[in-house]
Amino acid sequence: MFETLSILRNNAESYFKRLQDEITSALESLDGTTLFREDIWERPGGGGGRTRVMENGKIFEKAGVNFSAVSGDAPKYLQQDSQVSLLFFATGISLVLHPHNPHVPTVHANFRFFQLSSGEAWFGGGIDLTPNYIVESDINEFHSKLKSACDKHDNSYYPQFKKWCDEYFYIKHRKETRGVGGLFFDHLKGRDIELEKIFLFVQEIGNSFLPAYLPIVENNYKQPFTDEQKRWQLLRRGRYVEFNLVYDKGTLFGLETEGRIESILMSLPTLARWEYDVKHNAGSPEATILQVLKHPREWV
Amino acid sequence: MFETLSILRNNAESYFKRLQDEITSALESLDGTTLFREDIWERPGGGGGRTRVMENGKIFEKAGVNFSAVSGDAPKYLQQDSQVSLLFFATGISLVLHPHNPHVPTVHANFRFFQLSSGEAWFGGGIDLTPNYIVESDINEFHSKLKSACDKHDNSYYPQFKKWCDEYFYIKHRKETRGVGGLFFDHLKGRDIELEKIFLFVQEIGNSFLPAYLPIVENNYKQPFTDEQKRWQLLRRGRYVEFNLVYDKGTLFGLETEGRIESILMSLPTLARWEYDVKHNAGSPEATILQVLKHPREWV
Repeated sequence: MFETLSILRNNAESYFKRLQDEITSALESLDGTTLFREDIWERPGGGGGRTRVMENGKIFEKAGVNFSAVSGDAPKYLQQDSQVSLLFFATGISLVLHPHNPHVPTVHANFRFFQLSSGEAWFGGGIDLTPNYIVESDINEFHSKLKSACDKHDNSYYPQFKKWCDEYFYIKHRKETRGVGGLFFDHLKGRDIELEKIFLFVQEIGNSFLPAYLPIVENNYKQPFTDEQKRWQLLRRGRYVEFNLVYDKGTLFGLETEGRIESILMSLPTLARWEYDVKHNAGSPEATILQVLKHPREWV
Repeated sequence: MFETLSILRNNAESYFKRLQDEITSALESLDGTTLFREDIWERPGGGGGRTRVMENGKIFEKAGVNFSAVSGDAPKYLQQDSQVSLLFFATGISLVLHPHNPHVPTVHANFRFFQLSSGEAWFGGGIDLTPNYIVESDINEFHSKLKSACDKHDNSYYPQFKKWCDEYFYIKHRKETRGVGGLFFDHLKGRDIELEKIFLFVQEIGNSFLPAYLPIVENNYKQPFTDEQKRWQLLRRGRYVEFNLVYDKGTLFGLETEGRIESILMSLPTLARWEYDVKHNAGSPEATILQVLKHPREWV
């Protein structure tokens, strides 16, 4: 293994592992009935991971929280014009939580540190919310917390990474965003000292995940719902599948590079639905969220 | 519109329309309770189509049978090194039938005629079967009928197009074929006289669809099934979604070129399911079909 930035790399790996522990513990406490199953796996090309999945809990139909630290020959698209073949190291945490109740949004978060043997290194990540219905107070609060976390580091981060999130999680063929956004950033890098600062920012956002999401779960998971609302949730989950399988770079990269398939596709919901040409009455809650997804809002 | 091969083009278009009529009538008679809904649509760039969808019938949870005839500027990947910008014309029929009963296989068929203003023209198409369980007599019979239809035209067709089908409907990241295959062919072309012969072959296969598939429906649609068998069907439908959204060229081409999204994605099942790391007992019917999908068989 190449030795540059080895302290930062070790610190990033340790942080992502601790964050996985913290999040899975909190979700187990919240759920109260079901534990995460853990699978430790090795990657044939180098490194491995710790996949944790909870299925059919009290609150979550499917919750996946994955840690990995992998290394080996860098994938082609990162080899650039290098004369020698580059190696890579990547460590990160990736989570997707799909609740049972259609009034509780699905959430996704991912944080990663990537390094090439050329010396280049960067952080990427983000958190984004995918509700089935617009509850403005919840979404405002979620974005406010992410903005506060960003503002502690740089006032330009929130507006920049909020916009990047809306652009990244865009289902082009539906002309809709996947959800109501949050933060997305990638290739954050600088000189060594700046990379340390970026790592502090990444930890700030990582630590904001539970405080930003859990209150939304607590506010909504006991709400009654109708069969029609459940049907709408499954239709929206169909869109989630469309985004992840057609556009998501992490998913497609995993499929192309023969990553551990069960860990990659734990992001897909237990059930998804497709019906032909579904229509909604103007002004209905379903039509309202579709309008928001077609015209992303400022929430703070 | 460019005028070469206009008689063949008109004949192909008429044939695909008649085949759509014949298939939707037969499926309505078989179902006995539900009719296809029809939507006539126009393509902003030229041409249009006739989409027919049946949802929640007695036998079919979702059945889509689409006809289209579209034209305009050829997509980039077909422009080759041409000095002038090429136009294209394409007409075809595409169908996917998803039955309720897990003992009845999903089926897909597609036949198309494609023409460029450079003078180049070809036919493509095929039929393939996606069961949830292996019923050897049904699958043997299905392949035998397709082979007989092929053999009337050229003894080399069945082995060639059977193999092409196994290769095309391959879910690389799962190391599984989508189903038990059938026929797949593309870019069948020749001099004008040969194109007429190919058209006769395409009609032979198109006309074989109902005789090859309907007996399998009739043999199985009244079979009782358990919740576990329904769950397995939905997991297999998850794989169907994975293939169509990650690999299927027609689907991805439609999404990229802003085709009519509801017609393109009518191929997706009403419901699909994903669970983490599902295992099956060796020798179970579920393990048996997985073996077949990992090692495509000769059925005739």
